[in-house]
Amino acid sequence: MRPAVIIIDMLQDSFTEPRNPQREEEKIVAPMRDFLKKCRAISIPIIFGNDSFLREDFIFKGRLKPYAIRGTTGERVLPDLEPEPTDITLSKRRFSAFFKTDLDQTLRTYGIDTVAIGGINSHVCVIHTVLDAICHDFQTIILEDMCAAYKREIHEATMEAHRKSSLYPLLRVMTSGEFLAIYDHAKKA
Amino acid sequence: MRPAVIIIDMLQDSFTEPRNPQREEEKIVAPMRDFLKKCRAISIPIIFGNDSFLREDFIFKGRLKPYAIRGTTGERVLPDLEPEPTDITLSKRRFSAFFKTDLDQTLRTYGIDTVAIGGINSHVCVIHTVLDAICHDFQTIILEDMCAAYKREIHEATMEAHRKSSLYPLLRVMTSGEFLAIYDHAKKA
Amino acid sequence: MRPAVIIIDMLQDSFTEPRNPQREEEKIVAPMRDFLKKCRAISIPIIFGNDSFLREDFIFKGRLKPYAIRGTTGERVLPDLEPEPTDITLSKRRFSAFFKTDLDQTLRTYGIDTVAIGGINSHVCVIHTVLDAICHDFQTIILEDMCAAYKREIHEATMEAHRKSSLYPLLRVMTSGEFLAIYDHAKKA
Amino acid sequence: MRPAVIIIDMLQDSFTEPRNPQREEEKIVAPMRDFLKKCRAISIPIIFGNDSFLREDFIFKGRLKPYAIRGTTGERVLPDLEPEPTDITLSKRRFSAFFKTDLDQTLRTYGIDTVAIGGINSHVCVIHTVLDAICHDFQTIILEDMCAAYKREIHEATMEAHRKSSLYPLLRVMTSGEFLAIYDHAKKA
Repeated sequence: MRPAVIIIDMLQDSFTEPRNPQREEEKIVAPMRDFLKKCRAISIPIIFGNDSFLREDFIFKGRLKPYAIRGTTGERVLPDLEPEPTDITLSKRRFSAFFKTDLDQTLRTYGIDTVAIGGINSHVCVIHTVLDAICHDFQTIILEDMCAAYKREIHEATMEAHRKSSLYPLLRVMTSGEFLAIYDHAKKA
Repeated sequence: MRPAVIIIDMLQDSFTEPRNPQREEEKIVAPMRDFLKKCRAISIPIIFGNDSFLREDFIFKGRLKPYAIRGTTGERVLPDLEPEPTDITLSKRRFSAFFKTDLDQTLRTYGIDTVAIGGINSHVCVIHTVLDAICHDFQTIILEDMCAAYKREIHEATMEAHRKSSLYPLLRVMTSGEFLAIYDHAKKA
Repeated sequence: MRPAVIIIDMLQDSFTEPRNPQREEEKIVAPMRDFLKKCRAISIPIIFGNDSFLREDFIFKGRLKPYAIRGTTGERVLPDLEPEPTDITLSKRRFSAFFKTDLDQTLRTYGIDTVAIGGINSHVCVIHTVLDAICHDFQTIILEDMCAAYKREIHEATMEAHRKSSLYPLLRVMTSGEFLAIYDHAKKA
Repeated sequence: MRPAVIIIDMLQDSFTEPRNPQREEEKIVAPMRDFLKKCRAISIPIIFGNDSFLREDFIFKGRLKPYAIRGTTGERVLPDLEPEPTDITLSKRRFSAFFKTDLDQTLRTYGIDTVAIGGINSHVCVIHTVLDAICHDFQTIILEDMCAAYKREIHEATMEAHRKSSLYPLLRVMTSGEFLAIYDHAKKA
């Protein structure tokens, strides 16, 4: 098992001031920072997949207001997560970190066979990345305590829908603690 | 509004004998046949996106047993839906009908700007196609009464998660009847 | 070395009646049939990448007349090549056999690491497939005696341009005989 | 006609010190700088497609030495071209500027229907981008005086091969002066 961690859309424009600690998205920030530190300590590569849009993009033709515009600071990783220069930052133009990017090739080049995915929102960008990851033939783990949706029920329903996946164990829902334990076990074996 | 209808994985290997009318997937078969007839009558193009796997494919390395193998009758459209030669059938290698296919180009070539999506399972292949469709800049409609998941609650939770989408009205959840009414209205306008 | 052979656009609509044996494209037909037989005898997989267009496709907006239309016999492999059911036939929407197809995934699934490419025309569909093949991380061989362009000089200039490639030996120009000899040698080693 | 100009691999690591003005690649630098100025003056968007590799990339498994490594200055646009902040810079992982990038979507979002392509080397990265551009349904112009290959004959043979393209006028070979004249004429019409 050679895993990488992919963190979706934990970017500045998703956490604007004044910050509200009650938001579902906020609740995963501090635990994610600690989790990423543990990952770096055991040399698991970290990839931030960040929205990076054009102001003219189709997705802003509805009620969604432009944000995470390419070239602005808003598309950068949230500083609270304390990203390191050794992390990979990937600009993504749409929901999935694999959509029109070279992420599949990067992962294969590094010999990665397993991806563990967190971030926001569970039911859109996270799940789109998760489904693309399996489609690209990576064993895929949804880190349930490292994802959030703006409503708690939506997050939970998304996790529930995939918990008993017919693709198991290629697709698994687990906590970040379970992921680290499995990885630790695999390394010793 | 120039729509096309995309039907996901309503294929023979998903409806093996003996058929069980109580299955969630079975409940949409007859209504879908009638809906597709109405679509053809008003010249809305129909695209069947069908799983078409290799026996050696990664997705069969877990507990999922091989099915819908490329070249077998199992990957063909369910005859109950009474497909017509004017429908487009598209072999897809993974969940989304857009994944490593030329569907986006076909839709643009035909001047399609809106896709209405149905089929099975709501939370995997249907939603993956839905998310890819928006990513490819098509207005996207989830036909809630034309989709199913093996468990009713999973289907409903998936619809619920997207009903109040921040992408509205680029992404909309509606019934097939509402879709036909909107299309009828748009044509008259 | 686990090779596959990819044959580009040797399809019925490229060889219409009355056949003219003086055409550059015709000269490779009989040798290709014999080469493919040898490949099958030693279990090298054969993939036919065939043009498969819509009548409305952009590429027909210039002086090129529609041909190889999806669903017609014109898009099928030329019978002179005596294709076998064990060969893979792949419909391609544009020049390269990798463009919006799942060929890269098929090759990886079969453990292929090297592709040897022939067909027509050397400077368009063949070279596009060749360049895409390297981009997808396959060792790539241009089979110089199994390719043709409508003009001999164009074919030769294309081979010459890549013969001293800076990518050597990831990209190599060689004859079909040299390819079979190298493969034979690699197997014995 | 709404054109964009795409410039391939005119990056620092392709023009290392000491500079040799006799190199084919050097000869296009000054004319390109002047051409790009004219383009900006008439609001034609400019896109630099730059190699951006990982040290571990497959293409470096042959005799090619690592260069244009992601994150280094070597992957940046050559300062002699005097790039402006309004230009778009696109990191590409392989030869074509369309390969695993969102360039096709960017061009469509901006309403571009025609791309005029220059850079190095004519027979690899330029021609790969050219062929991909037509495949993505853009009218495509090869700017013959804005491209170069390390050997003059290879450049000329590449232009010659496409000068009488069966795809004409979707694919055209012309000088930068002819391109500007055609654009000027189209605007007045």
